[in-house]
Amino acid sequence: MSKIMAVNAGSSSLKFQLLEMPEEIVITQGVIERIGMDDAIITIKYGADVEPVRLVGTEDGTISLTKSGDQKYEAELPIKNHHEAIDLMLKKLSDLGIIKDFQEITGVGHRVVAGGEWFNHSVIVDDEVLSKIDRLADYAPLHNPANAMGIRAFQKLLPHATSVAVFDTSFHQTMPEKNYLYSLPYEYYARYGARKYGAHGTSHRYVTERAADKLGIPLDEFNAISFHLGAGASVTAIKNGKSYDTSMGFTPLAGLTMATRSGDVDPSLIYYIQEREGLSNEEMLNVLNKKSGLLGISTISSDMRDLENVQETNTHAQLALDMFYDRVIRYAGQYFAELGRVDAIIFTAGIGENDAVTRAKVLKSLAFAGVDLDEEANNVRGKETIITSSSSKVTGLLIPTNEELMIARDVVTLQNTK
Amino acid sequence: MSKIMAVNAGSSSLKFQLLEMPEEIVITQGVIERIGMDDAIITIKYGADVEPVRLVGTEDGTISLTKSGDQKYEAELPIKNHHEAIDLMLKKLSDLGIIKDFQEITGVGHRVVAGGEWFNHSVIVDDEVLSKIDRLADYAPLHNPANAMGIRAFQKLLPHATSVAVFDTSFHQTMPEKNYLYSLPYEYYARYGARKYGAHGTSHRYVTERAADKLGIPLDEFNAISFHLGAGASVTAIKNGKSYDTSMGFTPLAGLTMATRSGDVDPSLIYYIQEREGLSNEEMLNVLNKKSGLLGISTISSDMRDLENVQETNTHAQLALDMFYDRVIRYAGQYFAELGRVDAIIFTAGIGENDAVTRAKVLKSLAFAGVDLDEEANNVRGKETIITSSSSKVTGLLIPTNEELMIARDVVTLQNTK
Repeated sequence: MSKIMAVNAGSSSLKFQLLEMPEEIVITQGVIERIGMDDAIITIKYGADVEPVRLVGTEDGTISLTKSGDQKYEAELPIKNHHEAIDLMLKKLSDLGIIKDFQEITGVGHRVVAGGEWFNHSVIVDDEVLSKIDRLADYAPLHNPANAMGIRAFQKLLPHATSVAVFDTSFHQTMPEKNYLYSLPYEYYARYGARKYGAHGTSHRYVTERAADKLGIPLDEFNAISFHLGAGASVTAIKNGKSYDTSMGFTPLAGLTMATRSGDVDPSLIYYIQEREGLSNEEMLNVLNKKSGLLGISTISSDMRDLENVQETNTHAQLALDMFYDRVIRYAGQYFAELGRVDAIIFTAGIGENDAVTRAKVLKSLAFAGVDLDEEANNVRGKETIITSSSSKVTGLLIPTNEELMIARDVVTLQNTK
Repeated sequence: MSKIMAVNAGSSSLKFQLLEMPEEIVITQGVIERIGMDDAIITIKYGADVEPVRLVGTEDGTISLTKSGDQKYEAELPIKNHHEAIDLMLKKLSDLGIIKDFQEITGVGHRVVAGGEWFNHSVIVDDEVLSKIDRLADYAPLHNPANAMGIRAFQKLLPHATSVAVFDTSFHQTMPEKNYLYSLPYEYYARYGARKYGAHGTSHRYVTERAADKLGIPLDEFNAISFHLGAGASVTAIKNGKSYDTSMGFTPLAGLTMATRSGDVDPSLIYYIQEREGLSNEEMLNVLNKKSGLLGISTISSDMRDLENVQETNTHAQLALDMFYDRVIRYAGQYFAELGRVDAIIFTAGIGENDAVTRAKVLKSLAFAGVDLDEEANNVRGKETIITSSSSKVTGLLIPTNEELMIARDVVTLQNTK
């Protein structure tokens, strides 16, 4: 029995979750925000206050906890850097009695955004791995340097713990060349690694394994379409348990209409707008990443719930929702044709787990392929559920995602191979 | 009985076809190239030498001609501008005895590339129409000005003839907002008309009407997926006989892998390459339009036939073909899901009419929707054919396109309403 920490380090924030493994029980979770500022905030939840959907997905949605009670620690204070943030957090976990000794934490798994073509699975971090993560910053300039900072700080503070990197992209390294390449001059791939890398790999991998298991289909024979629909959204075609194609591209900008990201756009149009608006490349990319998607179309909000609340009276909100549904449906059909045979259609993440309308729209659009929605079963939130009828040729499922658990599992697996 | 000329004017070339209407018989066709040069070339084919697939599609592929023989006129000479080119061509048609009197030509229909949101059908050209075509040059800087030049020259030389503009985009004006908009800030649509316009509209319209007629389905109840696959390639989802969605976008760069065009690409990647290669926006657009697609991936040719010839031994050629098939298949599935019910899948243009492999790949990918390819029937070129079995839930068809005939028909229709 050991405690494993799953970490997601951003440039000025750090999210963490501590799990008891192999029992897969969440002990605590928290976040440190505004790192580098005088008014940084640290929040630690433990006891029953640990967010239920982040817990090991149990059939009935109940929560298993080693700690009783419903507790939250919160403080505002100056925090200089990631090292200081993590040091503070670990000491606080000890003060709160959540851990007795740092030695209890035997492994730390870090989410790393870009793994390029170097990493097709999670790895124990050594100097060479760290150097590669640094060099991959070209593909994720905002994320990889922050991920590396988190890794270095934990290595100093918990030198005994196994340090593991879990890449957002590695699950997609199984895509065939015809799917990961763009129809660009081949030399750009050779020279710059210009290709599709995808994202949300840890989430797609988790729900794929969970769904195959639930349906009793061997993973290596399992075909599925996995919709990770959150503020960032991506679809993955799963063939024989592996990623075969995915909607995100060289970066997470491509594919679906997202909260504030545009998804696919005719490149000519981007230049056209840029020239008329007098925007630099960087400014235009900012528009495509931060001001487009649901926010850009609706002009009022990037949050689906806000749009759903006013859709009856606001045509822009209605339009943004229709476009979102439509783009998701396009990928459903596209990946069905690419895969030929599909065993399951999986929905996960914020919208996928909570928005019955989106799920219904997608499954109904596939009626021509024998998909039969169960309206009643679909009327559910955040709970592992089969949402198609027993006569449906393909099973639709809601599977709450759990990237932290996947990270913790990878750490344990790699500890066992040491 | 009257003669109608269908014209496609480019910046330095002009293609024409003269049809006897309403009999829909091609009398002559030709091209003037290198307009503006001292060594311009004029070619006029008449008699049996008129290209068969450009003729009215008859069931058995035979050709109806008013002229007997197999004749071609060709000359190299200096031609200053479009006016001079057309003047020369008309005089030559008279010299060759193809027409007796310019008055016989009662109408001229012009292909115009960009019609924006102003033109949802073909129109008789007056000053206001011409001025709008000029103003739409923003959307098609290489094409609309040339199209307008052709119109003005014919108006001067054949002032008695009805002048008609037939837009590549107008068929797609029926697309719903959710399909023609991009997930960009809405203000760009309001300010610049930033939306999807599509292309190949005249071709998609022709084959749609032809297929509905052939299958005896009323056009306004006819759902289809129309693949116009040539050097430029686009797919259109047809709902109730109208364009519901299409793969080309703001410009013809978007969508499928084409001969030299990239189709869809993650916009972030374009900036990434541009910065590393030190390319201006214009240079990058040139790469995307002229050096990508089949040519870019294969590194050897933009022509499918060249790639098919060497695919056994050249992995790049094989990859380019696989990517082309794959992108076509993606749209097949996508539009199936968007339409829900599909009556027909139509293939047309160079590749669509002649490449049995592409057609087979697409139809086989839709087996999950009850599409059943007839391999033997599919082994055909350039001939109107049903290529699915009698038990197929959706009918696959090869329909040779005929944009010139569609243009001539529009001219006659508008003459009758005058």
